[in-house]
Amino acid sequence: MKDLFGRPGKISGLVLRIMQCLFAAASIGIMASAHGFTVSTAFCYLIASMGLQILWSSVLACIDIHALWLKRDLNNQIVFILFFVGDWVTATLSLAAACSSAGVAVLFVKDTNLCRPGSGLSCSMFQIAVSLAFVAWFLLAITSYVLFWLVASP
Amino acid sequence: MKDLFGRPGKISGLVLRIMQCLFAAASIGIMASAHGFTVSTAFCYLIASMGLQILWSSVLACIDIHALWLKRDLNNQIVFILFFVGDWVTATLSLAAACSSAGVAVLFVKDTNLCRPGSGLSCSMFQIAVSLAFVAWFLLAITSYVLFWLVASP
Repeated sequence: MKDLFGRPGKISGLVLRIMQCLFAAASIGIMASAHGFTVSTAFCYLIASMGLQILWSSVLACIDIHALWLKRDLNNQIVFILFFVGDWVTATLSLAAACSSAGVAVLFVKDTNLCRPGSGLSCSMFQIAVSLAFVAWFLLAITSYVLFWLVASP
Repeated sequence: MKDLFGRPGKISGLVLRIMQCLFAAASIGIMASAHGFTVSTAFCYLIASMGLQILWSSVLACIDIHALWLKRDLNNQIVFILFFVGDWVTATLSLAAACSSAGVAVLFVKDTNLCRPGSGLSCSMFQIAVSLAFVAWFLLAITSYVLFWLVASP
Protein backbone atom coordinates (compact mmCIF):
# COMPACT_ATOMS: atom_id res chain seq x y z
CA MET A 1 0.00 0.00 0.00
CA LYS A 2 2.85 2.38 0.83
CA ASP A 3 4.57 1.86 -2.56
CA LEU A 4 1.97 3.95 -4.37
CA PHE A 5 2.69 5.53 -7.75
CA GLY A 6 3.68 9.17 -7.31
CA ARG A 7 4.45 9.06 -3.60
CA PRO A 8 7.17 11.36 -2.22
CA GLY A 9 10.72 10.00 -2.45
CA LYS A 10 10.04 7.88 -5.57
CA ILE A 11 11.05 8.45 -9.20
CA SER A 12 7.35 8.64 -10.24
CA GLY A 13 6.74 11.32 -7.60
CA LEU A 14 9.72 13.33 -8.82
CA VAL A 15 8.55 13.08 -12.46
CA LEU A 16 5.07 14.31 -11.46
CA ARG A 17 6.56 17.28 -9.53
CA ILE A 18 8.78 18.27 -12.47
CA MET A 19 5.83 18.05 -14.88
CA GLN A 20 3.68 20.16 -12.49
CA CYS A 21 6.40 22.84 -12.58
CA LEU A 22 6.79 22.67 -16.37
CA PHE A 23 3.08 22.96 -17.18
CA ALA A 24 2.57 25.76 -14.63
CA ALA A 25 5.58 27.63 -16.04
CA ALA A 26 4.28 27.19 -19.60
CA SER A 27 0.86 28.51 -18.51
CA ILE A 28 2.46 31.59 -16.89
CA GLY A 29 4.72 32.21 -19.89
CA ILE A 30 1.88 32.09 -22.42
CA MET A 31 -0.55 34.11 -20.29
CA ALA A 32 2.04 36.79 -19.48
CA SER A 33 2.97 37.16 -23.15
CA ALA A 34 -0.68 37.43 -24.31
CA HIS A 35 -1.87 40.91 -25.24
CA GLY A 36 -4.47 42.35 -22.89
CA PHE A 37 -4.32 39.75 -20.09
CA THR A 38 -4.39 42.56 -17.49
CA VAL A 39 -7.98 43.32 -18.53
CA SER A 40 -9.19 40.54 -16.21
CA THR A 41 -8.35 39.90 -12.55
CA ALA A 42 -8.88 36.17 -13.19
CA PHE A 43 -5.97 36.05 -15.67
CA CYS A 44 -3.66 37.84 -13.18
CA TYR A 45 -4.80 35.43 -10.46
CA LEU A 46 -3.94 32.51 -12.79
CA ILE A 47 -0.36 33.79 -13.05
CA ALA A 48 -0.11 34.19 -9.24
CA SER A 49 -1.60 30.76 -8.57
CA MET A 50 0.62 29.00 -11.12
CA GLY A 51 3.60 30.82 -9.56
CA LEU A 52 2.64 29.39 -6.17
CA GLN A 53 2.32 25.93 -7.74
CA ILE A 54 5.83 26.21 -9.25
CA LEU A 55 7.22 27.25 -5.86
CA TRP A 56 5.52 24.41 -3.99
CA SER A 57 6.24 21.69 -6.58
CA SER A 58 9.90 22.70 -6.98
CA VAL A 59 10.45 22.53 -3.20
CA LEU A 60 8.93 19.03 -3.15
CA ALA A 61 10.95 18.03 -6.24
CA CYS A 62 14.14 19.08 -4.38
CA ILE A 63 13.08 16.97 -1.37
CA ASP A 64 12.44 14.02 -3.74
CA ILE A 65 15.89 14.46 -5.38
CA HIS A 66 17.51 14.63 -1.92
CA ALA A 67 15.73 11.45 -0.79
CA LEU A 68 16.61 9.60 -4.04
CA TRP A 69 20.23 10.80 -3.91
CA LEU A 70 20.73 9.54 -0.34
CA LYS A 71 18.49 6.49 -1.01
CA ARG A 72 16.38 7.47 2.01
CA ASP A 73 12.75 6.43 2.34
CA LEU A 74 10.41 9.33 3.15
CA ASN A 75 8.16 7.23 5.35
CA ASN A 76 7.14 9.70 8.03
CA GLN A 77 3.49 10.44 8.83
CA ILE A 78 4.19 14.04 9.93
CA VAL A 79 5.98 14.74 6.62
CA PHE A 80 3.07 13.19 4.70
CA ILE A 81 0.53 15.35 6.58
CA LEU A 82 2.54 18.53 5.83
CA PHE A 83 2.84 17.60 2.14
CA PHE A 84 -0.85 16.64 2.03
CA VAL A 85 -2.07 19.98 3.44
CA GLY A 86 0.21 21.96 1.12
CA ASP A 87 -0.77 19.88 -1.90
CA TRP A 88 -4.51 20.23 -1.27
CA VAL A 89 -4.35 23.99 -0.67
CA THR A 90 -2.23 24.50 -3.82
CA ALA A 91 -4.43 22.17 -5.90
CA THR A 92 -7.65 23.93 -4.81
CA LEU A 93 -6.16 27.36 -5.61
CA SER A 94 -4.92 26.09 -9.00
CA LEU A 95 -8.32 24.67 -9.90
CA ALA A 96 -10.00 27.90 -8.80
CA ALA A 97 -7.59 29.94 -10.94
CA ALA A 98 -7.97 27.69 -13.99
CA CYS A 99 -11.79 27.70 -13.73
CA SER A 100 -12.16 31.44 -13.18
CA SER A 101 -9.87 32.11 -16.16
CA ALA A 102 -11.81 29.58 -18.23
CA GLY A 103 -15.06 31.38 -17.36
CA VAL A 104 -13.64 34.71 -18.55
CA ALA A 105 -12.05 33.14 -21.66
CA VAL A 106 -15.39 31.56 -22.66
CA LEU A 107 -17.10 34.93 -22.11
CA PHE A 108 -14.57 36.61 -24.41
CA VAL A 109 -14.57 33.92 -27.12
CA LYS A 110 -18.17 32.63 -27.21
CA ASP A 111 -20.53 34.94 -25.34
CA THR A 112 -19.34 38.28 -26.70
CA ASN A 113 -17.54 39.57 -29.77
CA LEU A 114 -14.54 40.86 -27.77
CA CYS A 115 -12.22 38.47 -29.66
CA ARG A 116 -12.90 39.85 -33.12
CA PRO A 117 -9.73 40.64 -35.15
CA GLY A 118 -8.23 43.98 -34.16
CA SER A 119 -9.62 43.93 -30.61
CA GLY A 120 -6.11 43.74 -29.14
CA LEU A 121 -6.82 40.58 -27.11
CA SER A 122 -4.79 37.39 -27.68
CA CYS A 123 -7.77 35.11 -27.10
CA SER A 124 -6.15 31.93 -28.47
CA MET A 125 -3.23 32.43 -26.07
CA PHE A 126 -5.67 32.87 -23.16
CA GLN A 127 -7.23 29.51 -24.10
CA ILE A 128 -3.85 27.74 -24.37
CA ALA A 129 -2.71 29.15 -21.01
CA VAL A 130 -5.95 28.02 -19.34
CA SER A 131 -5.65 24.52 -20.87
CA LEU A 132 -2.07 24.21 -19.58
CA ALA A 133 -3.24 25.36 -16.13
CA PHE A 134 -5.86 22.57 -16.13
CA VAL A 135 -3.15 20.00 -16.98
CA ALA A 136 -0.92 21.42 -14.20
CA TRP A 137 -3.84 21.15 -11.75
CA PHE A 138 -4.62 17.56 -12.86
CA LEU A 139 -1.01 16.48 -12.22
CA LEU A 140 -1.15 18.13 -8.79
CA ALA A 141 -4.48 16.42 -8.07
CA ILE A 142 -2.83 13.00 -8.64
CA THR A 143 -0.14 13.64 -6.00
CA SER A 144 -2.78 15.14 -3.67
CA TYR A 145 -4.86 11.95 -3.79
CA VAL A 146 -1.76 9.78 -3.29
CA LEU A 147 -0.81 11.84 -0.21
CA PHE A 148 -4.36 11.67 1.18
CA TRP A 149 -4.23 7.91 0.75
CA LEU A 150 -0.86 7.74 2.56
CA VAL A 151 -2.20 9.90 5.42
CA ALA A 152 -5.55 8.09 5.74
CA SER A 153 -4.29 4.50 5.51
CA PRO A 154 -2.28 3.71 8.65
CA MET B 1 -12.55 5.94 13.25
CA LYS B 2 -15.73 4.85 11.53
CA ASP B 3 -17.94 7.17 13.64
CA LEU B 4 -16.78 10.26 11.79
CA PHE B 5 -18.83 13.47 11.74
CA GLY B 6 -20.89 13.68 8.54
CA ARG B 7 -20.62 10.03 7.50
CA PRO B 8 -23.54 8.43 5.64
CA GLY B 9 -26.32 7.05 7.82
CA LYS B 10 -25.76 9.54 10.67
CA ILE B 11 -27.76 12.63 11.71
CA SER B 12 -24.74 14.89 11.00
CA GLY B 13 -24.47 13.42 7.48
CA LEU B 14 -28.18 14.01 6.85
CA VAL B 15 -27.94 17.63 8.09
CA LEU B 16 -24.98 18.26 5.76
CA ARG B 17 -26.87 16.80 2.77
CA ILE B 18 -29.96 18.91 3.48
CA MET B 19 -27.81 22.06 3.81
CA GLN B 20 -26.04 21.22 0.54
CA CYS B 21 -29.44 21.04 -1.18
CA LEU B 22 -30.67 24.27 0.43
CA PHE B 23 -27.62 26.38 -0.47
CA ALA B 24 -27.49 24.98 -4.02
CA ALA B 25 -31.23 25.69 -4.46
CA ALA B 26 -30.80 29.25 -3.12
CA SER B 27 -27.90 29.79 -5.53
CA ILE B 28 -30.01 28.59 -8.48
CA GLY B 29 -33.01 30.67 -7.41
CA ILE B 30 -31.04 33.91 -7.09
CA MET B 31 -29.01 33.37 -10.27
CA ALA B 32 -32.08 32.43 -12.33
CA SER B 33 -33.98 35.51 -11.13
CA ALA B 34 -31.06 37.88 -11.88
CA HIS B 35 -31.42 40.07 -14.95
CA GLY B 36 -28.98 39.22 -17.74
CA PHE B 37 -27.55 35.98 -16.35
CA THR B 38 -27.79 34.41 -19.84
CA VAL B 39 -25.07 36.80 -21.04
CA SER B 40 -22.43 34.39 -19.68
CA THR B 41 -22.06 30.63 -20.21
CA ALA B 42 -20.43 30.42 -16.75
CA PHE B 43 -23.63 31.60 -15.03
CA CYS B 44 -25.72 29.05 -16.97
CA TYR B 45 -23.18 26.34 -16.05
CA LEU B 46 -23.51 27.38 -12.39
CA ILE B 47 -27.25 26.70 -12.55
CA ALA B 48 -26.68 23.30 -14.22
CA SER B 49 -23.97 22.31 -11.73
CA MET B 50 -26.00 23.38 -8.68
CA GLY B 51 -28.93 21.39 -10.14
CA LEU B 52 -26.72 18.30 -10.30
CA GLN B 53 -25.62 18.92 -6.70
CA ILE B 54 -29.26 19.13 -5.54
CA LEU B 55 -30.04 15.86 -7.36
CA TRP B 56 -27.04 14.03 -5.88
CA SER B 57 -27.39 15.41 -2.33
CA SER B 58 -31.14 14.74 -2.20
CA VAL B 59 -30.64 11.09 -3.25
CA LEU B 60 -28.03 10.67 -0.50
CA ALA B 61 -30.29 12.48 1.99
CA CYS B 62 -33.07 9.96 1.18
CA ILE B 63 -30.62 7.07 1.76
CA ASP B 64 -29.60 8.66 5.10
CA ILE B 65 -33.27 9.04 6.14
CA HIS B 66 -33.94 5.42 5.16
CA ALA B 67 -30.94 4.20 7.18
CA LEU B 68 -31.89 6.33 10.21
CA TRP B 69 -35.55 5.25 9.99
CA LEU B 70 -34.67 1.55 9.96
CA LYS B 71 -31.75 2.12 12.39
CA ARG B 72 -29.42 0.39 9.91
CA ASP B 73 -25.70 1.10 9.83
CA LEU B 74 -24.42 1.96 6.33
CA ASN B 75 -21.09 0.21 6.89
CA ASN B 76 -20.37 -1.18 3.44
CA GLN B 77 -17.14 -0.44 1.60
CA ILE B 78 -18.75 -0.74 -1.87
CA VAL B 79 -21.43 1.80 -0.88
CA PHE B 80 -18.75 4.14 0.49
CA ILE B 81 -16.73 3.89 -2.76
CA LEU B 82 -19.84 4.69 -4.85
CA PHE B 83 -20.73 7.67 -2.62
CA PHE B 84 -17.09 8.81 -2.63
CA VAL B 85 -16.80 8.83 -6.45
CA GLY B 86 -20.13 10.65 -6.84
CA ASP B 87 -19.26 13.17 -4.12
CA TRP B 88 -15.86 14.00 -5.60
CA VAL B 89 -17.16 14.38 -9.15
CA THR B 90 -20.03 16.61 -7.95
CA ALA B 91 -17.75 18.64 -5.66
CA THR B 92 -15.19 19.24 -8.44
CA LEU B 93 -17.93 20.34 -10.86
CA SER B 94 -19.46 22.63 -8.20
CA LEU B 95 -16.11 24.27 -7.43
CA ALA B 96 -15.45 24.70 -11.16
CA ALA B 97 -18.87 26.32 -11.64
CA ALA B 98 -18.50 28.61 -8.62
CA CYS B 99 -14.98 29.71 -9.66
CA SER B 100 -15.81 30.32 -13.33
CA SER B 101 -18.86 32.37 -12.30
CA ALA B 102 -16.74 34.26 -9.75
CA GLY B 103 -14.21 35.09 -12.49
CA VAL B 104 -16.96 36.52 -14.70
CA ALA B 105 -18.62 38.36 -11.78
CA VAL B 106 -15.30 40.02 -10.83
CA LEU B 107 -14.79 40.99 -14.49
CA PHE B 108 -18.25 42.62 -14.53
CA VAL B 109 -17.98 44.37 -11.15
CA LYS B 110 -14.30 45.37 -10.86
CA ASP B 111 -12.51 45.11 -14.19
CA THR B 112 -15.10 46.78 -16.42
CA ASN B 113 -17.96 49.26 -16.02
CA LEU B 114 -20.59 46.75 -17.14
CA CYS B 115 -22.33 47.00 -13.75
CA ARG B 116 -23.07 50.72 -13.93
CA PRO B 117 -26.68 51.68 -13.10
CA GLY B 118 -28.97 51.12 -16.08
CA SER B 119 -26.82 48.39 -17.64
CA GLY B 120 -29.56 45.78 -17.15
CA LEU B 121 -27.31 43.39 -15.22
CA SER B 122 -28.16 42.36 -11.63
CA CYS B 123 -24.53 42.27 -10.53
CA SER B 124 -25.21 42.11 -6.79
CA MET B 125 -27.44 39.06 -7.37
CA PHE B 126 -24.68 37.41 -9.40
CA GLN B 127 -22.32 37.92 -6.45
CA ILE B 128 -24.81 36.53 -3.90
CA ALA B 129 -25.51 33.46 -6.10
CA VAL B 130 -21.76 32.79 -6.49
CA SER B 131 -21.20 33.16 -2.71
CA LEU B 132 -24.01 30.67 -2.00
CA ALA B 133 -22.49 28.27 -4.56
CA PHE B 134 -19.14 28.45 -2.72
CA VAL B 135 -20.91 27.60 0.58
CA ALA B 136 -22.73 24.68 -1.13
CA TRP B 137 -19.38 23.43 -2.50
CA PHE B 138 -17.70 23.77 0.93
CA LEU B 139 -20.43 21.66 2.58
CA LEU B 140 -20.03 19.03 -0.18
CA ALA B 141 -16.23 19.11 0.27
CA ILE B 142 -16.68 18.15 3.96
CA THR B 143 -18.67 15.00 3.12
CA SER B 144 -16.23 14.22 0.28
CA TYR B 145 -13.27 14.23 2.67
CA VAL B 146 -15.19 12.13 5.21
CA LEU B 147 -16.00 9.56 2.49
CA PHE B 148 -12.39 9.50 1.26
CA TRP B 149 -11.29 8.86 4.84
CA LEU B 150 -13.82 6.01 5.19
CA VAL B 151 -12.66 4.47 1.88
CA ALA B 152 -8.92 4.88 2.56
CA SER B 153 -8.86 3.71 6.19
CA PRO B 154 -9.59 -0.04 6.28
